[in-house]
Amino acid sequence: MRSAFHDELDSISASLLTMAGLVREAMNDATKALLEADLTLAEKVIAADEAIDQIQHDLDARTINLMARQQPVASDLRTLVTSLRMSADLERMGDLAHHIAKQARMRFPNCAVPSELTTTITSMGSVSNALISKLTAVMEHKDTVRALEIETDDDEMDTLHRQLIATLLEDSWAHGVEPAIDMTLLGRYYERCADHAVSIARRVYFLVTGEYAAPAL
Amino acid sequence: MRSAFHDELDSISASLLTMAGLVREAMNDATKALLEADLTLAEKVIAADEAIDQIQHDLDARTINLMARQQPVASDLRTLVTSLRMSADLERMGDLAHHIAKQARMRFPNCAVPSELTTTITSMGSVSNALISKLTAVMEHKDTVRALEIETDDDEMDTLHRQLIATLLEDSWAHGVEPAIDMTLLGRYYERCADHAVSIARRVYFLVTGEYAAPAL
Repeated sequence: MRSAFHDELDSISASLLTMAGLVREAMNDATKALLEADLTLAEKVIAADEAIDQIQHDLDARTINLMARQQPVASDLRTLVTSLRMSADLERMGDLAHHIAKQARMRFPNCAVPSELTTTITSMGSVSNALISKLTAVMEHKDTVRALEIETDDDEMDTLHRQLIATLLEDSWAHGVEPAIDMTLLGRYYERCADHAVSIARRVYFLVTGEYAAPAL
Repeated sequence: MRSAFHDELDSISASLLTMAGLVREAMNDATKALLEADLTLAEKVIAADEAIDQIQHDLDARTINLMARQQPVASDLRTLVTSLRMSADLERMGDLAHHIAKQARMRFPNCAVPSELTTTITSMGSVSNALISKLTAVMEHKDTVRALEIETDDDEMDTLHRQLIATLLEDSWAHGVEPAIDMTLLGRYYERCADHAVSIARRVYFLVTGEYAAPAL
């Protein structure tokens, strides 16, 4: 009986990894769609968000069902509750990729990103890719060292975010208000995506060590 | 034993209502601080966010503890899982009030809101207050009729949000990029706060009826 239970726990962990993989792909595609004004790719990300939501839905149903049927011991229960929270974070990260893709679609055939911000958005996309890759390893191997590193990686995203806002405020900003609104929202989407990655990393850290890495986001 | 369990369930519901009350107060204070450039009130909201976070922390610990000790039947387990999700939504709403208050503090002694947006922000504050009041009644009385109304109330917030962005894009907008960035973020905070209220209302609806009011946010 316990072995069947642990098989189901493993399958829940596997679904979380699947979600993380899809979120990483969605963020990468969304960044590419945004920078290259690629409508087809933007539409792909927008459609893929539903698949992520569906996985979360099924995963949460399985998790709650397992809790109800197996009456798990405290430590396993904690793992299951954490799974529910991680799936919520991942689902939200998928939403943010979807928001980025919608911004790309809204400005098509133009590029939503003015040329002086291409580098910043490219970097935000790279940091986000690196964060989610590391997060996947953290989740898969319960790797607390890399869980802590994710906090530092997130500092990099915050720096890029400040750079983005600073560019909008320069005297040389010649694009006016509308692209400034676009870029403010896009900056916020990347920043929030990284926050959710940090939040998941902290949950893994807590699950393994029983201690908080830092105050919860 | 079952009676002690239900006492604990009631106390968890009571704590959720306390959180909702604090979030409503925080949003109201944050809006007032923003519109009146009231630094003392802004500081109050910023400090109060920690109290909200602490209640969530204690509440979640009690909820998980109750799950582990009492091995609840499926329907009670669902209520407990939903409590965890509602406390996460409420905590995030508190964060958004905190963000609004920080914006008020950052622009002090100036007012962060240009005069042509005073009415819009006042209305966003009122809608948010009405939403959270109604939400409290929904949570307290498991009121599915008002749970559905919250969807419509949220449409009002979306309309105000579109109005806000339209004002920033008018030719007559003379404040330049920085206040446009501020207002874009503030608009997003109010909109997200309303989204979380809708999300909680949908959770209550599902718990009572076993059916989804609409796709989850």
